[in-house]
Amino acid sequence: MALADAGALLRNENGIATVVSILKKRFGDNAQTGKSIREQHAHTTSYVPNQAPDLVVFAESAEDVQEVVRLCGEWQVPVIPFGTGTSLEGQVNAPAGGVSIDLSRMNRILKVYSEDLNVVIEPGVTRKELNEYLRDTGLFFPIDPGANASLGGMAATRASGTNAVRYGTMRENVLALKSVMPDGRLITTSKRVKKTSAGYDLTRLLIGSEGTLGIITELTLKLYGIPQAISGGICAFPDLESACNAVIETIQMGIPVARIELVNQLEMQAMIAYSKLDYEPAPYLFLEFHGSETSVAEQAELFGEIAAANGGGEFKWTANAEEREKLWSARHNSYFACMTLAPGKQSLSTDVCVPISRLAECIVATEKDIEKSGLIAPIVGHAGDGNFHVLVLFDEKDANEIEKVEAFVERLNLRAIAMDGTCTGEHGIGQGKIKFLRAELGGAVDVMEAIKRAIDPGNIMNPGKILRL
Amino acid sequence: MALADAGALLRNENGIATVVSILKKRFGDNAQTGKSIREQHAHTTSYVPNQAPDLVVFAESAEDVQEVVRLCGEWQVPVIPFGTGTSLEGQVNAPAGGVSIDLSRMNRILKVYSEDLNVVIEPGVTRKELNEYLRDTGLFFPIDPGANASLGGMAATRASGTNAVRYGTMRENVLALKSVMPDGRLITTSKRVKKTSAGYDLTRLLIGSEGTLGIITELTLKLYGIPQAISGGICAFPDLESACNAVIETIQMGIPVARIELVNQLEMQAMIAYSKLDYEPAPYLFLEFHGSETSVAEQAELFGEIAAANGGGEFKWTANAEEREKLWSARHNSYFACMTLAPGKQSLSTDVCVPISRLAECIVATEKDIEKSGLIAPIVGHAGDGNFHVLVLFDEKDANEIEKVEAFVERLNLRAIAMDGTCTGEHGIGQGKIKFLRAELGGAVDVMEAIKRAIDPGNIMNPGKILRL
Repeated sequence: MALADAGALLRNENGIATVVSILKKRFGDNAQTGKSIREQHAHTTSYVPNQAPDLVVFAESAEDVQEVVRLCGEWQVPVIPFGTGTSLEGQVNAPAGGVSIDLSRMNRILKVYSEDLNVVIEPGVTRKELNEYLRDTGLFFPIDPGANASLGGMAATRASGTNAVRYGTMRENVLALKSVMPDGRLITTSKRVKKTSAGYDLTRLLIGSEGTLGIITELTLKLYGIPQAISGGICAFPDLESACNAVIETIQMGIPVARIELVNQLEMQAMIAYSKLDYEPAPYLFLEFHGSETSVAEQAELFGEIAAANGGGEFKWTANAEEREKLWSARHNSYFACMTLAPGKQSLSTDVCVPISRLAECIVATEKDIEKSGLIAPIVGHAGDGNFHVLVLFDEKDANEIEKVEAFVERLNLRAIAMDGTCTGEHGIGQGKIKFLRAELGGAVDVMEAIKRAIDPGNIMNPGKILRL
Repeated sequence: MALADAGALLRNENGIATVVSILKKRFGDNAQTGKSIREQHAHTTSYVPNQAPDLVVFAESAEDVQEVVRLCGEWQVPVIPFGTGTSLEGQVNAPAGGVSIDLSRMNRILKVYSEDLNVVIEPGVTRKELNEYLRDTGLFFPIDPGANASLGGMAATRASGTNAVRYGTMRENVLALKSVMPDGRLITTSKRVKKTSAGYDLTRLLIGSEGTLGIITELTLKLYGIPQAISGGICAFPDLESACNAVIETIQMGIPVARIELVNQLEMQAMIAYSKLDYEPAPYLFLEFHGSETSVAEQAELFGEIAAANGGGEFKWTANAEEREKLWSARHNSYFACMTLAPGKQSLSTDVCVPISRLAECIVATEKDIEKSGLIAPIVGHAGDGNFHVLVLFDEKDANEIEKVEAFVERLNLRAIAMDGTCTGEHGIGQGKIKFLRAELGGAVDVMEAIKRAIDPGNIMNPGKILRL
């Protein structure tokens, strides 16, 4: 299959056999070689073909991770960290085989520092587990990439999602990491402080490195007080451009929206049908405001004025939790809603991000491109950040359609890059976007390669991801 | 002189002579070897002894920087980037001689993107110049380290200051950089987007690298709308601990304070005398709120309640610009106020940062330490971030006092590190804090060294800073 096939890398058969045999003895039931479990560890929500590892080790401690990494280093065998397998660009594939280290059992919440608004956790904790645990403290962790991903994986792919417009991404919300490096040593990248000027920012270097530089074994995350009040609502617009202009003005006026999501007409049609919403199909903005009661009311009113000035329909907002939940649950179910547009088809979720001043132009051109290509591909966007997703539906047995999808994805990425944008706002490079990274950043990729070679000279950490090494 | 003397590194006399001769011919009046200009380029607001470069080149373009770097690379001669010389830990010293590249003439504001809330500038633009330029756009750049530093230098030292509690530091406010790397190549670290997951975060790697990995030649910075309303005020507390508790509660309640500064009693005495303020000496908090008129009033009232609950005096706040200016100008002049505490003495400004839950403990222990040491050393802090400064006054001709100061600074840094803190919240490592970096982060420093060696194998970029290489 052609679509995003990164190709297999050379396998070190001898090394792999040795390591598998040693680790099976050492880890017993925590080391699994069954086909289905191996395939599951390469199977993600991605369109990228499955490349299973040779062994899955369920790590229970940083020491376990160190032991596996040291052994793999000695035998030059690839190590691929695994959280929940929700990455979208083939990040957990094993193109040269090797050992998948499953971190889901390292899921302890080690310490909540309420006064400092931070928490220390193991990497296998998922975002929902963390928020469940925090519920009684009045604190929460805002980053929400949709999937109930592990926080280690979210850091490794620099994830974000709907709340990023207000709270930032994983880049802004991780204070410190512990990481097992390719030589097996465990490092601490920073102390538990809000800011520091002490040396190179290894925290940020590991965030977004997709397991190619080290395996995160502990995270210190920022927390936020649960807002006193939350209000939200949705608003229809006559066209995408007006909706984008409303977003730009909202951001520019400094209204601290917690969420401002754009849904195109096709996507809205699917959501109306799937979630039985009583709305007319049109481009919509979904909004949420966090703050005091006065503040959320003020924010909603200000946004209402901006929407009206941009030709938007009536902005009905509510502080009623149940009504809000219904709307956001429709938004969160948009993936399933879309799938009903073409039952039986496979989906490819891709993301790009542009400066918001170019968002309308980029989305409108993309909508036209979709129409011209004859594809079914609804669009949703984290509009306040200039980030949007296209969910392309295609028949994986139709070579002609696959070719069309590939060409469309390439045009989309190059279009975003040409508009001062990036080929990925939040999904990462993985295997699927390696060629676009070079198109986007040119010679900077050589510097990334130099760093990778210096930190991982044996290229054992998640090889074949981000860089062509 | 013993205090923070980093020692001279080996000089490559032959290489230096060759490079100086070539560059003088090539750059004419833009290449200066006069003693006073050379000394001025190593003279900073630092206590670290002056180590002058052999030549100062005034660069006017990235191409100039590339040319100098390439030549220095060929001859293995150190290159030290220079902005305004306001760094505090010896960052612009030339311990092995070499070429200082003065970037102050690269001070063009290249493009303001109002709709996207960002701006592209050259590195020599100072923060005041930028805000002056932006005045009519309704936008501003909030990071304010006190000194009117160049924005390139602020990025290189990961600077922050009073507004960081609300707006973050340079780490959070730089979207992309252009940088001349040690091999002379010019790279772009990121596109002009609010978020991206495209490869390693070279932007953050360069921020805080203090010119040891590359020379920043262009920055894309985030901007913010000038708040509709600003209010502020100050509040006395019976002791430091109550003041710190008021800070913790303010942050924990999610009040989005723009500034929350702690001033200890000695510092306040000096400020009262110097700026003729009508207040009683005590520990004080200085506050500023940004937002809508409703919001700043609400924030100030909420803070007033918190202050009262923590034994604070009356919180008199005002939205009157003149009254606010007077207070903040007193805060900004605190350095000069302090100097009057011991006329004729030299000053050492040092900074540490701890989790705010440890701030009271750390400052109280530090006050006691100062008293016991018989030093004059007032304290001011960016309390909302757990970051504070001690300005130690000492007689540079008194060996005994210098020894006392050195021992005090060492205890202060180790105390902060032992409290989960960092040896520098915003001044950087430079030459002065190299030994504390290792105490703070241990083996992570080896990873920093590996990165430095990979990117700058000839060790020509600002050698002798951050790392012992």
